[in-house]
Amino acid sequence: MSSAANSSGETGRYAGRGVSASKNEVHAVVDKLDRGVFPGAFCKLTEDFLTGNPDFCNVTHSDGSGTKSLLAYMWWRETGDASVFRGIAQDSVVMNIDDLLCVGVTGRILLSSTVNRNARNIPGDVLAALIEGTEDFLQKLRDFGVDIRSGGGETADVGDLTPTLTVDSCATAVLARKDVVDASRITPGLTIVGLASGGVCAYDTEENSGIGSNGLTSARHELLCKHYAETYPETYDSRTSADLVYCGPYRMSDALPGSPLSVGRALLSPTRTYAPFVLRLLNELGAGRVPGLIHCSGGAQTKCIRFGSNVHFIKDNLLPPPPIFTAIQKASKTSTHEMHKVYNMGHRLEVYCQPQDTQAVLAIAKSLNIEARIIGRTEPSQIAGKNHVTITTGTGEVLKY
Amino acid sequence: MSSAANSSGETGRYAGRGVSASKNEVHAVVDKLDRGVFPGAFCKLTEDFLTGNPDFCNVTHSDGSGTKSLLAYMWWRETGDASVFRGIAQDSVVMNIDDLLCVGVTGRILLSSTVNRNARNIPGDVLAALIEGTEDFLQKLRDFGVDIRSGGGETADVGDLTPTLTVDSCATAVLARKDVVDASRITPGLTIVGLASGGVCAYDTEENSGIGSNGLTSARHELLCKHYAETYPETYDSRTSADLVYCGPYRMSDALPGSPLSVGRALLSPTRTYAPFVLRLLNELGAGRVPGLIHCSGGAQTKCIRFGSNVHFIKDNLLPPPPIFTAIQKASKTSTHEMHKVYNMGHRLEVYCQPQDTQAVLAIAKSLNIEARIIGRTEPSQIAGKNHVTITTGTGEVLKY
Repeated sequence: MSSAANSSGETGRYAGRGVSASKNEVHAVVDKLDRGVFPGAFCKLTEDFLTGNPDFCNVTHSDGSGTKSLLAYMWWRETGDASVFRGIAQDSVVMNIDDLLCVGVTGRILLSSTVNRNARNIPGDVLAALIEGTEDFLQKLRDFGVDIRSGGGETADVGDLTPTLTVDSCATAVLARKDVVDASRITPGLTIVGLASGGVCAYDTEENSGIGSNGLTSARHELLCKHYAETYPETYDSRTSADLVYCGPYRMSDALPGSPLSVGRALLSPTRTYAPFVLRLLNELGAGRVPGLIHCSGGAQTKCIRFGSNVHFIKDNLLPPPPIFTAIQKASKTSTHEMHKVYNMGHRLEVYCQPQDTQAVLAIAKSLNIEARIIGRTEPSQIAGKNHVTITTGTGEVLKY
Repeated sequence: MSSAANSSGETGRYAGRGVSASKNEVHAVVDKLDRGVFPGAFCKLTEDFLTGNPDFCNVTHSDGSGTKSLLAYMWWRETGDASVFRGIAQDSVVMNIDDLLCVGVTGRILLSSTVNRNARNIPGDVLAALIEGTEDFLQKLRDFGVDIRSGGGETADVGDLTPTLTVDSCATAVLARKDVVDASRITPGLTIVGLASGGVCAYDTEENSGIGSNGLTSARHELLCKHYAETYPETYDSRTSADLVYCGPYRMSDALPGSPLSVGRALLSPTRTYAPFVLRLLNELGAGRVPGLIHCSGGAQTKCIRFGSNVHFIKDNLLPPPPIFTAIQKASKTSTHEMHKVYNMGHRLEVYCQPQDTQAVLAIAKSLNIEARIIGRTEPSQIAGKNHVTITTGTGEVLKY
């Protein structure tokens, strides 16, 4: 049944795949917890437990590559090329550090990694690609001045918990309170600059599709065809209704319409980090002139709604959606409204700045060859006591959240 | 086939369940990495990247509850009691902090947690038990003077990666180099004090079986009966040979011979932390008088072999094995030699100390009502350039590693 309810009572294609789109039940528990010393910031910041300095604070952050590891698994099984897991290592790291960037952390980051695997399916050369991919990516970041180090990791053999593997990381930093970017300072009257999630920037070695690491359960099933259901039953929940499993038109080796990439390569594009950009931004402007940085991860173009108060986020000049998102929408018949809640649709980082700082922000993006533009602005909320978002797409469709 | 080989080429009951017993392939990759500023210490310690203080170092550590979460899942499904997951939260925390204890960290610990779940099977009340269980356990530690704080966590809905859930944590600390317990200082001539993994100590609210969080894949399948295979197919890898799946004699509600606990409660006993003990130990003796602390986790009674050099570890006065291990051995027909490599068999922490400090160590354990005794000693190695271990069991069996 494609209308199966998950444990939250949600229905639809998302819930039918065992995924909670709303995370309402998680927020209900988490919202009771202490929100830290900057309660409106993008990440939880605590007092400086680690060293006890009253002028500092701490952040520790966990996230991972999610179900993107399954795409790497199938690619590896089809091609024998384990190096595809190097991109998964990058995804796991970036899902952490790009959140940290949004509170102003651009260095002195200590990373730990966890791989939970089924040893029957995931051999040593996959682990080697993950471990070496992590080390090489951290070195690349250091080459761009972003000081991040690995403190180690754990590989657990848990074949009864996963038929394949999960790849997660945890990033920790100690930060001067004066250097915190505090998204609670997002107010009406700001410019929103969006930075492209795809293309080829100064630190890319190949075209990036912009996919990131969010919405990959849907993207994988909606784009890929039954071949994968038949060949790799270990890559989906057997209780998911067959009509929701790999129900798309493509093989991974097929060309993605409008893109130089194959569908598989596009889905596997490693999540771009904005760390070199934010490092330059904060060096040049200082945290005081950056009221907000938003990583458009879970929630995508609506992520901003949780930050600042009494703000109407108006986004009326988005970058054109990259081909991967057009293909997902076409294959899945997802509404444009829903697409913008699940996928970044073209930019994965938003800089909120004073209008007079806009040109400086754009120039820094340009110095790293990251496509960027003014994608919108903030105005006073039209709904008393609540933030809301209005997106006007390139075709003139108006989306309200 | 119970002789199926896993991806490492290993065979036997362990490999037949998709678990690598040797982790040889993992070590082959990890051993090439930088080993940090105290290369022989129990955990990897790096220079102080977090704050840049040359007198300090950092440790960040990831581990989790492993497949013990599956026991909680089945208990919850059979009883409706989600509070059993509070113990899983404790397992995940203790698997990290008890490793940190072994390098001398007893406070200023910052913790992050990750739950990867299938939202179809794992609803909000399970997440609530995990999150609240973590918070309550940290508060209990703080009540005993162990300063540990939660910096947040992540819940990911990854139904295609796991039919149930994985529970992992990451713990980070900044430590003065002078306070590091460096297991490379384990030499011949030391006394080994073992601290019981089970019983009822000053901070337990009920009898602990001593099981810890290692070897639970085997323990679960070897003790529990086919009822669980038939009722909970989501708790094992469908490709595992049927004769290796839940092939034991018990229901979870059955009495464990020789114990006041049921089999289920014994398997689910939360991993005891030794943090209050190590805090008192290091306050009283100082790190300089504690050459080594070994957490008998993966590798169990042979874990010590990796620390110190040219050491013969002689263990000839072990605590009697708790009933849970006797039951596992009887059900699985595992050799006594193998049992000591997988299970702690009675003590999960070893203190290596000068003979004249032994009484002080025992007195501190007694002050917390933790059973402890001299379980052995170190002598010069009998095998040139190598550490080795000789265990003499209570029945006079001699085990060599």
